[in-house]
This record gives sequence, structure tokens and C-alpha cells, in this order.
Amino acid sequence: MSDRSVPAFDGGGINFNAQHSCVGAFMSFTCGHFGGGGGIGVEIGKPANQNIYVGVKRGGRESRHAIKCLPFVRGGSFTSAAANFHVDQAHTAPPASVECYRREQIKRHFGWASDAWATDDGLAFTIYTPFAPIPEPGSGDTTALRASVLPAIVATLRIDNRGGSETRTAIFALDFPETGTRLLRPTASDEKSTPAPPAAASKLGFAHRRSLGVLGMLEDAPSDSADDLFAFQRWSVAEGVADVNPVHELGSCGGIGVEVPAGQSRTIVLAIGCYLDGIVTTGLEGRYYYTRFYAGLEEVLTAALQRSRELRDRAARLDAKLLASRLSRRQQFLIAHGTRGYYGSTQLLDVGGEAFFIVNEGEYCMMNTLDLAIDQAFWELRHNPWVVRNILDNFSRHYSYHDTVRARGGAEALPGGVSFTHDMGVNNNFARPGHSAYELPHLVGCFSHMTQEQLCNWILLAACYVAKTGDRKWLAENAPLLAACATSLRNRAHPRTGIMACDSSRCEDGQEITTYDSLDESLGQARSNTYLAVKCWAAWTALEMLSAMNASSLASDDRAPFESLAPQIAQHLCASVGADGTLPAVLEKDNPGYRSRILPVVEGLIYPFYWLNCLRERAGAAAAGGAGGAGAAGAGDDGDNDEARQVAARALRSPLVETLRRHTMQLLADPRKPNLFPDGGIKLSSTSTNSWMSKIALFQHVCRQVLRLHEAPQVAELFAAADAAHVRWQSEGSSFWACSDQFVSGVAKASRYYPRLITAALWLDESPKIVTTITAPRQSPRVTAGR
Amino acid sequence: MSDRSVPAFDGGGINFNAQHSCVGAFMSFTCGHFGGGGGIGVEIGKPANQNIYVGVKRGGRESRHAIKCLPFVRGGSFTSAAANFHVDQAHTAPPASVECYRREQIKRHFGWASDAWATDDGLAFTIYTPFAPIPEPGSGDTTALRASVLPAIVATLRIDNRGGSETRTAIFALDFPETGTRLLRPTASDEKSTPAPPAAASKLGFAHRRSLGVLGMLEDAPSDSADDLFAFQRWSVAEGVADVNPVHELGSCGGIGVEVPAGQSRTIVLAIGCYLDGIVTTGLEGRYYYTRFYAGLEEVLTAALQRSRELRDRAARLDAKLLASRLSRRQQFLIAHGTRGYYGSTQLLDVGGEAFFIVNEGEYCMMNTLDLAIDQAFWELRHNPWVVRNILDNFSRHYSYHDTVRARGGAEALPGGVSFTHDMGVNNNFARPGHSAYELPHLVGCFSHMTQEQLCNWILLAACYVAKTGDRKWLAENAPLLAACATSLRNRAHPRTGIMACDSSRCEDGQEITTYDSLDESLGQARSNTYLAVKCWAAWTALEMLSAMNASSLASDDRAPFESLAPQIAQHLCASVGADGTLPAVLEKDNPGYRSRILPVVEGLIYPFYWLNCLRERAGAAAAGGAGGAGAAGAGDDGDNDEARQVAARALRSPLVETLRRHTMQLLADPRKPNLFPDGGIKLSSTSTNSWMSKIALFQHVCRQVLRLHEAPQVAELFAAADAAHVRWQSEGSSFWACSDQFVSGVAKASRYYPRLITAALWLDESPKIVTTITAPRQSPRVTAGR
Repeated sequence: MSDRSVPAFDGGGINFNAQHSCVGAFMSFTCGHFGGGGGIGVEIGKPANQNIYVGVKRGGRESRHAIKCLPFVRGGSFTSAAANFHVDQAHTAPPASVECYRREQIKRHFGWASDAWATDDGLAFTIYTPFAPIPEPGSGDTTALRASVLPAIVATLRIDNRGGSETRTAIFALDFPETGTRLLRPTASDEKSTPAPPAAASKLGFAHRRSLGVLGMLEDAPSDSADDLFAFQRWSVAEGVADVNPVHELGSCGGIGVEVPAGQSRTIVLAIGCYLDGIVTTGLEGRYYYTRFYAGLEEVLTAALQRSRELRDRAARLDAKLLASRLSRRQQFLIAHGTRGYYGSTQLLDVGGEAFFIVNEGEYCMMNTLDLAIDQAFWELRHNPWVVRNILDNFSRHYSYHDTVRARGGAEALPGGVSFTHDMGVNNNFARPGHSAYELPHLVGCFSHMTQEQLCNWILLAACYVAKTGDRKWLAENAPLLAACATSLRNRAHPRTGIMACDSSRCEDGQEITTYDSLDESLGQARSNTYLAVKCWAAWTALEMLSAMNASSLASDDRAPFESLAPQIAQHLCASVGADGTLPAVLEKDNPGYRSRILPVVEGLIYPFYWLNCLRERAGAAAAGGAGGAGAAGAGDDGDNDEARQVAARALRSPLVETLRRHTMQLLADPRKPNLFPDGGIKLSSTSTNSWMSKIALFQHVCRQVLRLHEAPQVAELFAAADAAHVRWQSEGSSFWACSDQFVSGVAKASRYYPRLITAALWLDESPKIVTTITAPRQSPRVTAGR
Repeated sequence: MSDRSVPAFDGGGINFNAQHSCVGAFMSFTCGHFGGGGGIGVEIGKPANQNIYVGVKRGGRESRHAIKCLPFVRGGSFTSAAANFHVDQAHTAPPASVECYRREQIKRHFGWASDAWATDDGLAFTIYTPFAPIPEPGSGDTTALRASVLPAIVATLRIDNRGGSETRTAIFALDFPETGTRLLRPTASDEKSTPAPPAAASKLGFAHRRSLGVLGMLEDAPSDSADDLFAFQRWSVAEGVADVNPVHELGSCGGIGVEVPAGQSRTIVLAIGCYLDGIVTTGLEGRYYYTRFYAGLEEVLTAALQRSRELRDRAARLDAKLLASRLSRRQQFLIAHGTRGYYGSTQLLDVGGEAFFIVNEGEYCMMNTLDLAIDQAFWELRHNPWVVRNILDNFSRHYSYHDTVRARGGAEALPGGVSFTHDMGVNNNFARPGHSAYELPHLVGCFSHMTQEQLCNWILLAACYVAKTGDRKWLAENAPLLAACATSLRNRAHPRTGIMACDSSRCEDGQEITTYDSLDESLGQARSNTYLAVKCWAAWTALEMLSAMNASSLASDDRAPFESLAPQIAQHLCASVGADGTLPAVLEKDNPGYRSRILPVVEGLIYPFYWLNCLRERAGAAAAGGAGGAGAAGAGDDGDNDEARQVAARALRSPLVETLRRHTMQLLADPRKPNLFPDGGIKLSSTSTNSWMSKIALFQHVCRQVLRLHEAPQVAELFAAADAAHVRWQSEGSSFWACSDQFVSGVAKASRYYPRLITAALWLDESPKIVTTITAPRQSPRVTAGR
């Protein structure tokens, strides 16, 4: 079987969609939701609307048995098109119909890079989505780059009829509701770039116009059955398989199939891909980067089939790697689901000859939303650090602006400074330079500006990039901008407390919000918000650290703006703790958020922790590998690096850390469970039933790695129960919408089909060796009862 | 008012969609069906699915009055998108809502090239679709060609507030259900090709990604109000007009508007267009011809606005021309509706540098369906004869084939010959050479082959083209193919009767059908069908005529295949008339169609009549203008032309004409009304309730022009009543589907959104001077009672 030792999923219903995507094509083959259809979607931010038939029937292709399909088949069909022709004549009913496997006949094996559906009668359908680093465009490795941007995935459909006594017929088909289905008849020229495949691999498939398609070939068939594969196109899948005319070019449903003789097995390898030619965006005009390497859909699909062994092997290695992690199966599931959601939103463009990497914001399709980019950076810095630099540079080049600010209740325009937009546009329409698609003036809630948070995010993203890569050239080039960021950060802060006190003038008579844009007052307001205060503290720490790393190339005068407000923020937050040991969400006593208690207040702690580990790793690599090590770019500046490490380590020894540990422990241990849902899931705000999965993942990571709360058995148990709930949120509460972020009492209501749960992959870093006792000697966390 | 003297429509409900299209862009702005939405559709063969807001409200843009719209607004809206953001926060309801004018408050003025909606309170919305000849691509007149292929139309929205006492605010908006709405901010470079417009014309608009858009400007506004025009983009039109934030780039609804002060009026001129870049077809790879002349959507829309005066003036001249015809208002309506349906299906491509003209088959989107092309040829030969040659050549180059044939019940493969496919593909996917998208083997009804009919159609199309243009060069080049057509025609016929007796081997165990593919046995079977027999008779006549016209360039040996079977066919048909004077539909006594009586049996008579008139016109022009006349290409071959005229005239004196006159008169006068619907509409087959509007129009034309049946007052009355019914079929029975062809008891059930009713434009030729008494002296038609 093709499950490759990934155990069957048992953390909730198996009835949930998953995105299956390559990198950078903004494409997903989505399936899994029972009765929901799905299929190939490009640039749509939601599951596609095709009907999916993956099934097998008794007998040869002309038999009158029903085709038994995986339960993706949607109720209703598009076959009424036939009725638009047959007005006066009886239309012969399809010779065989379709039925679906029942839940109990199916197992689903959901690995990091494979999603396998296996039935009790020998059908196995597996979709492979191995991910891999993308060589930096322009760096010269065009062969590897071509391979990595292939806009297609592969799947296999295997029918094991070795124990059978009659022929069975297996099919894979998609019925497209929009007109344009056609058969694919690849020509030799589509196979120009790679060696010819083995003799048995004749290829057949179907497509939708020029943009989407599926190409299949038989694998390991006896040499005398090389032509068993057949293609069809009719209004109904059953007609396509069994009718005397398998192909009618008017038909909406394309498919391929094979007859499997008794006593044998057959595997169809499927390439599922897309190709959008020409300029696809407005504002900035970009085309898909893959159009540099592939001439069209047929070449893409042929290349995918030719590489199918390699792609499947890579998927197996990734599956094994996740299985070998010390994470629970629930944690593994959330990582695997989050990884799929992430890649389905990625889009690598060529804008004016330069690579432009975009992560689209799930169902909203906003481009490179900065408050997502910072959370997703941990993933990309591991796989493609150049992507993070690309995003940083595109924000500074196209999507930064300067504002003035206003203190609370004040009318006077005070000096502000530089910040960055929420996003770069939406739905392939780039926004005007210096403007986002999302942000509006005059508002106090959703769609208001996020000037303060995005300023922090750009600084933190820069710090993560430099800490991870040691790219001092980039740092030196961006030192003036970082200095401007420091000024801007200072101008928004209360000079004594360091807490954000001023809203951007872009808000007009409104006020800034945080990334939790639809949450209640506990996180809806940016000003005086403790979540954002800790992010500001981290941003100051970032500026201190980057200043240290850039020390050799800066005159001492230039370092002036980096006089940090981090100590003031820490001190003020520590002083704001209530009698019960917790921090209010908003430090304004007349704000309803003053009563709220939020867990993401700890989120900012991740940054100094991450930087310290990066700097140590690079120092270690440099020490081990000499000048040729990973930190070679800055290997000559050990002094600067030492100082940078000290900045990060000092931050982690701040009293703020202990304050936040107590805050968190208090909330988690409170018997009234203010920050837990009844199902055990984590409630980010005590006053709202609206919670964000990606932020929960970050929170859990900080709790374990920085605060070591998991050493308290109660917390470990609580987190394990929470993971179980979160798996159900995704697999049941978001069954149609694949991986989602925003859940209201466990049901995905917004931020669906979303990339950001990739933050859960941080958990993979939680190996014993990287977990260091960073902070000063302290007591083991202790659960205190109540307040 | 902008109704330009087109009277208000009163032939049925005004609640019907109409296509508003330019030529060759396969685009339509469709609106008119109450509650049905519509908007800009490209390459879809059905009304688009946008919501359309054309309305006005009391007060300035921020007033809280409802916007009163033309009743295109669809129930429900797409504003639920806002709910996907506002999870935890109250979303402020739009400050004003939308209501619709009631039926009795609206008049619709439906001219040949304008469609004007006027309300009782001074709103007038007019859409202009002037058509014009397309210079032949490659002929050198690129300026005129550029103008004629502009992929946009213009409309005006005028608010007459001269008698008002308060400001009113007018808006035009489209709400797109698919994501991608954006504002248009044209740059100076979009106006590069033509002089700058008057100062007051600042332009604002909106678009959907790169492909669809609307640009507007104010006309005749006082110079101090040049900036009154505003644009908006929100999820709801009401928010866009009235909210403090009129533009949110996430919004799905784009619009423009203007405040109209009391005592004044304002007119917004709108350009509504599309632009699809790059290759859009498969098989043969074509791009839109307009991409040769326009760089993108903004340039298209700007050019349309700059030409809006000219386009509206041309529309007015066309409106006036139709009004000045001696046709009834009902006939005028059917012509105007048919013209719109036709242009909405046209698609002018550039395939490998050469123009490729396509008419898509309405809702089916089959490309250049040949049995439509022959019926539509009368229109194109008047406006763009090169289009007919283009279609002829593309059939002979890419979509002809050779078959063998089988006699009824016989198994032996007999010599067949050349024929032509039903179509060239479907949904922008060109079919394989020599194959159609439509035709399948093994069938006896819908989707079977039409080999015999398409062979006739290509011959008849060639004859119409040559007769109209006198293009002897083309005739000489195609003489071998025409000879092969004669052979093929003969091989399918019974040698004694000339009637089709053999089915193509492509049918396998099936049999051929006619263009009436979904009709019952009366027209479903091609073999022995009398409708097709008369078409074969006309095809033989065509071959005789073309042979005569080509006589000078042919050796006498080469003329051998043109020995015509026309006399045999005529003789056999005359001998097959029953005691009641009518012909069976199918001349096989054991066929159910033997009992059917069909009106389209007369259709083939149109060809010799049309040719004779063409040849006479060209002879007249040549005589009047000498060598420089319209027939210059062949002006030196008067002898050939004389012989050709004699062929056509002889055909019209055939006893077959009198036989068909009696057949038709008998059916029309039969008190049992076998070929009339209860509402007075014409029933093409006595045994089916399925009728085709385009074929009815041809039938009526033949009845009047060739058979002079309208001279019998009963027939004139019957046709007038039928026209009234047919107007209701279109305006009520096809209210959503715009102009349709196939009606079952007055309701459009198939062949909807269709191009073929352009055949009704033949009625414009029915002026007294062109009506000649061609046939031999005869009695005035006389109504006989019963059989």
C-alpha cells in the first residue's frame, strides 16, 4: 500500500478538505470533504468547484456496475447540459451510475507530504506534495530552480486486484462546471527537456482550456498492457467510462482509467497542474516565474510525470521525517495541515525580470499581508531565506510610508515616521505604492490601520532575517531605514512607559487595530495593548541587536536612534500586573479590554529566543566550519555577533519574562478556565470566543521553549488536550475550508483556507538540544490555585 | 431624452435580456431581465453573473435615501463577504439601501443599435451598439480596422434634474461575484493614439482584474463641475456611494456616480469593454485580433470614450434606418434582437498572423457551426464578404474530410467523398483537423453526423459568396474542390431520384441527422428528408451556376462532374406529393416522419433567388459603373455571368417551386392548423412542438419573396399574428436568455443566447423593387379549404 507507514488518521473526522499544492503557483488540488467536490483551483482562495471522481467498478469499462468512488462526489451534477440539446428526443440514461464508499470502508493517511486514501477493497489514492528549498532566482542554479517551481503535483491511483476473480476498472475524473474541458494529446515536443520515460508510459489526460490539466500514465504494467490506459470526456463520468462513445468534445467531465485484470494490480500516476501565461497582475505587472522554464500546460504535466518517482520519494522522506519527530500525532497533523495551507497560497512572480514572492492571505487573497509574513518567516528562514529578504525589500521599496501621529484624544499632528502597509494588494491587483488594499481611515475596528504593528513586524522580520543569515550587506544597506524605524517607533510611544500612545494620522478620526482585526476590545485596539507592547519591546530589542551586528560599519553618531525603550516597556508592564498576577489586555482603565486577559501577550518573547538560537547556531557553524561555514557572510565580525547575542540573552533575562510566565501560568491554572474553550481548545482572549490557530501555535511554542511551562504536568496535559481539540477544529470545524486560522468556538468562521498555521512547524525545533535554560535561575513553574 | 425617436417597446414584456456587443470580442454586456443581474461576459455563452446597479437617489451622495435602480438588481447580494471579516464586531449596515423602479415607471426603447431605458422621473440609460463593416485584415486599412475591432461598447446614463428642487445622485455600478474588482486610474499614456478629449472629461472607472472594465466621463457638464464624477468600490453599492470610505480595495462592487444639482442635468458616458491578452484557444492557437491594435484594457476604454460621439451617432443612424424600413415594429424588433445576438457570439482571432473569424454557437459555444454559417451568410455577405470566404477557407483547410457511405440497410462501404465538419471546435478548443466537437458515431439522433447537410452548406456558402462578390479568383482556386463536392453529392444520392440515400460511414451503425438535431423524426433523419432534398437541389443548382461562372477558365472535360441531379430531385419531389397537395417530411413510408409535414422544405428556394438577385445587382452595377463597378473582379466575363443568371432563373421556374407553394399554402390554410401554435407562432413540423426562430424567419422570407404567399390576405394576417407571437417568445419565453432560437411551445429550451436569428435581417431586402416576378406566369395564390 502507498500509505508509507503514515498511520491512519484518527484525531477527528477524515471528512476534511486539504490543499495539495506545489510552491509558487497559487494553485491547489483540494479534496477530502465528503460530498464537497473540489479539484484544481488557481488564484481563487477557496476550494475549486469541480466534481471529483476517484473510483473503481466491477467488470470491464463497459460493465453496467456502478462506479464506487471516494466520497468526494458532490450531490447533483452538471449533466443537465445534455438536456440543453435533447429537447425533442429521449436522452439515454448513462449506462452506469456512481456510488460512494462509506466512511467505515476508508482509511486516510495524512502525512507531511502525502495524503493517502485507502479502501477496504484495494483502492488507494495518494496525493504527494513534497516541498523543498527554492534556489534564489538569479543565483545561477536554473536547473534546480526550474524543478522547484514546477506548477504541478503528482498523485497515484492504485487498484490491487491480485486477489480478485474478475476485471475491475479504475478511473480518475474531474467534472468542470465552467465550459472548456478538452482531452490532452501530448506531442513528443512536450518531452523535450528530459530523457524519455520507460516504454510502457504512454500518456493520456484532459484539461480545462489552457490553464488546468491532468495527465496520467500507467506504472509497472506488464509490457503487453501498455495501451490499457484510456481517456474519456462526456457530460457524465459513467458515460465516459462505459458508453460506445467515450469521447465527446462537448462533455464537461474529463477522465482517464484502466482495466485491471483479475489477479493483477495497476497504478495510474497522475500529474495535476496548471499554467497561466502572460501578465496576471495589475499595478505591478507580473507573470508566473514558472513561465520562464515551461512553455505550456502539456510541458508542465509531462515534466511532472517524468519526475514522479523523485517527487514521491521526496514525499516519503518528508513523511518519515515528521513521523520521526518527537511530536505527538496531533501535533504532526497540525503541522502537516498547516504546511499544505501555506503552499497553496504561495505565488512566485516575475515582475520586471525580478522574482517577487507573494503569500496570499487564504480566502481573502490579500498579498503578502505583513502580519502574516512575520509569523510565517520562521518557516521561510529555514527553507528560503531569500524569500524573507524579498518580502522585506518589496515592502521598503513599494509599500512603506511616512505619517504623523496623534495622541489619544489629542488633535495635534505630532511627528510620526516610517511604517509599512498591511498588505501589497488583493486578488492579483497590486495596491498603489504606499497603500494597502485593507486599511481604511475613520474606523476603530476591522479595516482600520495597523501602522504600529506593521512597523514592529518589519523590524522583527529584518532582525529574524539578519540573525538567521548573517547578511551584513543587507543590514548595512538598510541601516538608514532601520534608524528611521527606531525614530518612528519612538514617536508613537509614551516617552516614559514606551507603550504605544499615539495613533497614525492615517486613521483620521479612527484608531489603530492589531492583526486580530475582528476580535473584541481585548485585541482590537492597538494603543496601550499589552500584546503589542511586548512586540514593541521585541522590536526595540531587534534594533539594539541589529545595531550591534552592524557596529563595525557605523559611526557612533549613527547609533544614537537605537537608544532603546525596551527597559521602560518591560518595567511598565511588570508594574501593571494586577493583584492576581495577570496583565490586563489593554492598559487603559476605561477600556473594556482592561478586563480582558490575553495569552498572546507572550508572543513577542519568541523573537529574542529565536535570534539567540540563530546567532548561536551560526557561531557554532562558523567555529566548526571556519570561514566556509554558514555564517561566512559575516564571519569576520565575531565581536559584533557576540554583542548581538548578549542583547538577545539579556532580553530573555528581563523581569518581563518572569512576569509573563506568571501571567500565563495564572490564566492556564485558573479553575474558571478563562482562556480555555469547553472542548479544551485555547482561547486567546478571556472575553472572546474567537481564537486564531496560528497564534495558538506560537503561544504554545513560547510557553514550552521560553517559559518552560510544559514542565508543569498540568500544562503539559492541558496542551495535549488542547491539541486534540485543535485537530477537531481543523478536521471537523473547518472540514470544507481545509486549513483555517480563525475559529469561533471551534468552527472556522473567517481566515479560512489559510497559510498561517505553518507557525506550528516551529514545534519541530523543540528538540531537547535546542531547548536551553536561558533565563536566570528561577523556580520551577508552580500552579497556583485561583487568583 | 435619448430614445432618438425609437418608440417604446410594447410587443411583450420589456423584462428581457439583450446582448450588447461589439464585433469579434466574444463579449456581451447583457442586461434587461428583471431581477437577473447580468453585466460583462466574455467567452461564456450566457448572461454574466454580476449584479447591475443603474440608479439615482434623492440628495447628495451621502444622503440616506435608497438608491432607486432599474430592475436589473438581483435578489440577494455578494455583501456577505464582509461577514468573513467581521466575526467579533458589529458590522455597520450600509447607510442606504437599494430599491427598484416598478414596471409601470419604465419605458424601454429597443432600436437596431440602441437600447434605452427611461423612467418617469428623468433617468435614462442607453446602450449603443452600432455595427459596421470590418475592413478585411491585411487589406491595408489599419486605422479603420483598429476602429472596427475595438472591444468595447458605450452607454450613457443621463439624469434630468432640471425640474428638480434638490440634488440627486446618479450611479452606475457592477458587483462582481468573482474576486478581483479594482479601480481604474488611467494614465496619460492610455490616450496616446488620439487627440485629448475636452477639458471637462476626467475619466474614472473600475475593472475586474485585467480583462473587464468600465470607464466613465461626464459630458456637457458646466466647466466648474468637472470633478463631480466620483468612483467607488465597496462590498455594497450603497456603502460605495454614501460611506465615509467610498473606496475599499477589498470591495466587490465597483461604480461611478455624479451628483446632479437641482435645476441641472448630467450625462455620464460609459465605456464598457474587455481585453484578453495572449493565446486564448487550443488546437489552433489564436489571440484576439484587437490585441494587434490596443495594448490593454485601459487603452480600449479610453479609445471608446474618445469615440463615443461617433459611436452614438452611428447608432442613431442605424436606429433611423430600421425605423424607416417598411417593416412592422414587430419585425423590426426581431431583427434588432437578432442582430445583438449575432454580434455577441462573434470572435475575430489572429491565428498565426492570419485573421480567423468565428461565430460561436450561442449557449453551446461551438465554433463556426457550418449549419449556422450558411444561414448567417446573408448578413455577412452584405457587411463583410471576406468573413464568408474566411469561413469557407478554414473549413476546406482544416475541417474537411473524406468518407465512404452505406445505403440504407446495406453493409457495403460505397464510395463517398468530401464533406465538412459540423463545427471547428467548442469553448475556444479547436477540434482536431477533420473532426468536429459535436459529431459522434453510433447514433441516430442528436450528436450524430451531418455529412450530407454540411456538404450542401459548404457548396451553398461558396455559391452565395461567389454570386455576391464575383470573386472568380477564389472560384478558380476552388474549382477542384467544388468538383469533388459534386462527386460526393452524387455518391450519397439515389441515382434515379437524386434524393439522399446513403449515410456516411462516420456514422458507423448510426445514421445522419439534419441541423434540426433535437427535432422528432420529421427533421431528425437526413436520409430521404425533403428539407434536405431541396437543399441538395439547391446545391446542384449552385454547382451548375458556379460551373457556368467558371466556364472560361475550365476545359470542357473538367465540367463533367457538374452534370446536375437537380431535375431528378425536382421531379421526384413533385411526384411525391400526396393527394392533399403536401409533401411528407421523410420519403420513407415506414418512417414516422412520413406522416409529418414540415415548412422548412421550402428553405432551399432562397438560394437561386438570392443568387439571381446578386448576379443582377452586380450586372447592373457593372453596366452602370463600367469596369470600376462592384463586379469588377469578373467584369470581363459577362458571358459566364449571363449563363449563371440563366441557371438561377431556370431553377426558379422549376415545377418544384409551384409544388412547394402548394404544399406551404395547404399547410398554412389547413383549418386544423397543423403548423401553427395556439398562440399563432409558426410550427416548423406538424408533429413537434419544437420550433426554430431563425428558420421561421427564413421560411417567411421565402414565402414572401419567392412564393409571394403574402399576396393572399390570409397569409399576410397569419404572418402578422405569427410575428406578434414570436416577439413574445423572445421577450417573454426567452426573457433571461436574450435572443434564442429553439422554442418549445414558445419557451426557449435550447439554442439560447444564440446568433442565428440574424436571418431575420433578410426581411430588410423585401423592398418592392427587389421583389421580382421570377417564376413563370401563374395564378395568384388561392386559399383552398382543407385537404
